[in-house]
Amino acid sequence: MLIIGERINASRKSIAEAISSRNAAFIQNEAKAQAVAGADYIDVNAGIFVDEEVTHLKWVIEIVQEVIDLPLCIDSPDPAVFKAMIPWVKKTPMINSITLETSRLEGVLSLVSEYQMKVIALCQSEDSIADTAEAKVRMAEQLVNKVGAAGIPLGDLYIDPLVYPLATNEKSALATLAAIEQIMKEFSGVHTTCGLTNVSYGLPNRRLVNRTFLVAAIARGLDSAILDPTDKQLFGALKAALMISGKDEFCRQYIAGFRKGRLE
Amino acid sequence: MLIIGERINASRKSIAEAISSRNAAFIQNEAKAQAVAGADYIDVNAGIFVDEEVTHLKWVIEIVQEVIDLPLCIDSPDPAVFKAMIPWVKKTPMINSITLETSRLEGVLSLVSEYQMKVIALCQSEDSIADTAEAKVRMAEQLVNKVGAAGIPLGDLYIDPLVYPLATNEKSALATLAAIEQIMKEFSGVHTTCGLTNVSYGLPNRRLVNRTFLVAAIARGLDSAILDPTDKQLFGALKAALMISGKDEFCRQYIAGFRKGRLE
Repeated sequence: MLIIGERINASRKSIAEAISSRNAAFIQNEAKAQAVAGADYIDVNAGIFVDEEVTHLKWVIEIVQEVIDLPLCIDSPDPAVFKAMIPWVKKTPMINSITLETSRLEGVLSLVSEYQMKVIALCQSEDSIADTAEAKVRMAEQLVNKVGAAGIPLGDLYIDPLVYPLATNEKSALATLAAIEQIMKEFSGVHTTCGLTNVSYGLPNRRLVNRTFLVAAIARGLDSAILDPTDKQLFGALKAALMISGKDEFCRQYIAGFRKGRLE
Repeated sequence: MLIIGERINASRKSIAEAISSRNAAFIQNEAKAQAVAGADYIDVNAGIFVDEEVTHLKWVIEIVQEVIDLPLCIDSPDPAVFKAMIPWVKKTPMINSITLETSRLEGVLSLVSEYQMKVIALCQSEDSIADTAEAKVRMAEQLVNKVGAAGIPLGDLYIDPLVYPLATNEKSALATLAAIEQIMKEFSGVHTTCGLTNVSYGLPNRRLVNRTFLVAAIARGLDSAILDPTDKQLFGALKAALMISGKDEFCRQYIAGFRKGRLE
């Protein structure tokens, strides 16, 4: 299970403020906390600063790398940002994300191939979103084909089938869960990943909904997630879900997490 | 989702003591709490009192029926007890349980048929337990055949594929989850149910493991469970799991549970 720590995202007000005011300690603490909590990659996002994204993200990357050794996940809506950040990362980063939109695909694939990076690909195209399992799997197939054609090993592809709010469509999680299972079965070697927060938009007790969705997704084969590993209830659900899914030999990871006081 | 409230079970020390000392208020509070919390049936078990089970269980049934209107789930290892309790129940009870063991099957099926009761059937035979998905489904098939031959509608059959401790076999939950899905697919109209506590035996933070297993099982189609509905974290996981599985139109049940302060 590859965990991408989501906390350093400028869409969060506290992060945006820390970036604006160059509060390095605040950002560094977020990075360290996620590293200690078990993140494999640390997501870095400065996407809300449209004209200054490159400057700001470069600063975030520099100060985060001062305090942790983990690789980063470069998170931007602008494909040009990925290329601009490559010179500044110490370890091979992950790219977050591409879609089937030509503008987000062209250029990025050759970059991913050249630097042998892992890449998150969303089931979304120029003119449509995929809201049924079938539509998600069809888009996943197109992503698999494009990535394969660019010479990128399928093991570097992390498909996010996307999940939409249950509050507006009560079958939305079901579609994503079915898509995860089918994608993992049909495209051997490919990974699936998912952001969790969309699913609970508009509902009360969102964290309960998010972690319940995560459990169901892991039970369907999800092998990566973009989440907050410092959330002990979420992390507990994650570790228990992996154990229940037969992916924790001798229950070692679960027991280790418990001993560290990380599972609630 | 049919919820069988599990708290009035004499294997719990406090219940055994309350039965022994004829502390009606204690038992009645357990019944009321579970009714308020959303149980559909209230399980009643006095199985540890081997020679006095009938006397004790009859008393439990009488005092529970004084305070709640819900039907009961008569829980006994001894098939003779089911028949002995029939005259004392006000509403058609559920039978918990039969297995493929002849001694637990004969007689009970004709009783179930005569009184049109729901019955829980465990995937367990005289000489073996089923620890793989295949073995569980094969036993489920035998149960379906026996129940069908006795003229009992399959809609009254609640198959419990049983789950064994993860601590001794890390694939045990996976086998049960796969069995639940296959049973629901192969035997149209049949229900599945499950006790949750076995899965976590020997592990720390058992309640986390139990509720995580419940979520995964609901995502696979489980449509009944024997559990403690007063456990708000478990109940929250249950309601969120049903919503995520597309079984909560307009998220109404989830939102209602939240408004009542029942989801944690």
